[in-house]
Amino acid sequence: MERLIDKTCQDFTHALASKAPVPGGGGAAALAGALGTALCSMVANYTIGKKKYAAVEDDIRAVLEKAEALQTRLLELVDEDAAAFAPLSAAYAIPKDDPTRDTVLEEASLRACQAPREMVRLSCEAVKLLEEVLEKGSVMLLSDVGCGALLCGAAMRSAAMNVYVNTASLQDRQKAKNLDAEIDALLTVFGPRADRMAEDVSRRLRKER
Amino acid sequence: MERLIDKTCQDFTHALASKAPVPGGGGAAALAGALGTALCSMVANYTIGKKKYAAVEDDIRAVLEKAEALQTRLLELVDEDAAAFAPLSAAYAIPKDDPTRDTVLEEASLRACQAPREMVRLSCEAVKLLEEVLEKGSVMLLSDVGCGALLCGAAMRSAAMNVYVNTASLQDRQKAKNLDAEIDALLTVFGPRADRMAEDVSRRLRKER
Repeated sequence: MERLIDKTCQDFTHALASKAPVPGGGGAAALAGALGTALCSMVANYTIGKKKYAAVEDDIRAVLEKAEALQTRLLELVDEDAAAFAPLSAAYAIPKDDPTRDTVLEEASLRACQAPREMVRLSCEAVKLLEEVLEKGSVMLLSDVGCGALLCGAAMRSAAMNVYVNTASLQDRQKAKNLDAEIDALLTVFGPRADRMAEDVSRRLRKER
Repeated sequence: MERLIDKTCQDFTHALASKAPVPGGGGAAALAGALGTALCSMVANYTIGKKKYAAVEDDIRAVLEKAEALQTRLLELVDEDAAAFAPLSAAYAIPKDDPTRDTVLEEASLRACQAPREMVRLSCEAVKLLEEVLEKGSVMLLSDVGCGALLCGAAMRSAAMNVYVNTASLQDRQKAKNLDAEIDALLTVFGPRADRMAEDVSRRLRKER
């Protein structure tokens, strides 16, 4: 089967808008995170090899390697998120009086939490890397760091919604609470860090004139 | 020449990360806006034809039509933004003592403001449409409305940075101020509206359990 990330940007967007079961908000979140992470790599790529930034070149190379790994994984999560949708949809379709329904739905809901949960974690990691390129990387690409921060911020919060929507239907309320708490803890720290980075970039862009 | 939006999602992301001159932050912003707008259309598509929402069907159809137009235009802007990059890059490469440099650079900078400026405007329009589907559309797709709001919020702010970075180098300071003021006025209104919508959705998702 064709992977969603092998669709053209135009076709992916059209499929997202349509009644096709996938992609949905989770796939859009993963792609946005991958785009934000790619902007981090772009700034790193334009910094490496520049005499002015020779002193931080090793750090930037390390950032680039980590950003590339995050980007690869976030792109994979577009399709992993989609793969968890069919079993979830099938579970919801089981008649309410069927004795297997609860168990199957519980398992499918738990599974559907996993891809967005990882998207949250990876988008938060990307924020740390963007902070490092903001501090050390080429100032020529300041606006790209800001866009990266905004996209990763939106990605982690979008992915979080896709966790919440699935924990909401879990029978095991303790497991649901633990998952929500894990996501909340990450958003509380990294949401504001992404926002502050974007505000900082915006301020600096408007000052440099 | 192959359009950027005809690249696969994977290849677009790789090109964004690379030292290829385009896409950059502006293209990523337009794509994020198109994805957010597509989520608005998706919610509309799942609402239309449902008995429960028959009373608002005409409104939702009108929203869908507008969202589809915004999405089409935002996708076009990915490549229009890229097309403005080559002349800008060429203008910066003109030797500083060349008497034509200032005029050519001024024109290229002004042109480079246009695509991101329109992205800001269209992403703000998408926020209005998302508000309407949040109010009237299927509650089954609540998380997708939230993701749409987050992506359009990130798109408008990312696009704004790509205006600021170009107005910064304009010689005509009055024109620069006017452009910045136009963008600021839109962000001041629609940035918080996108954020509030996302917070509202998040709260509702976590309550429904």
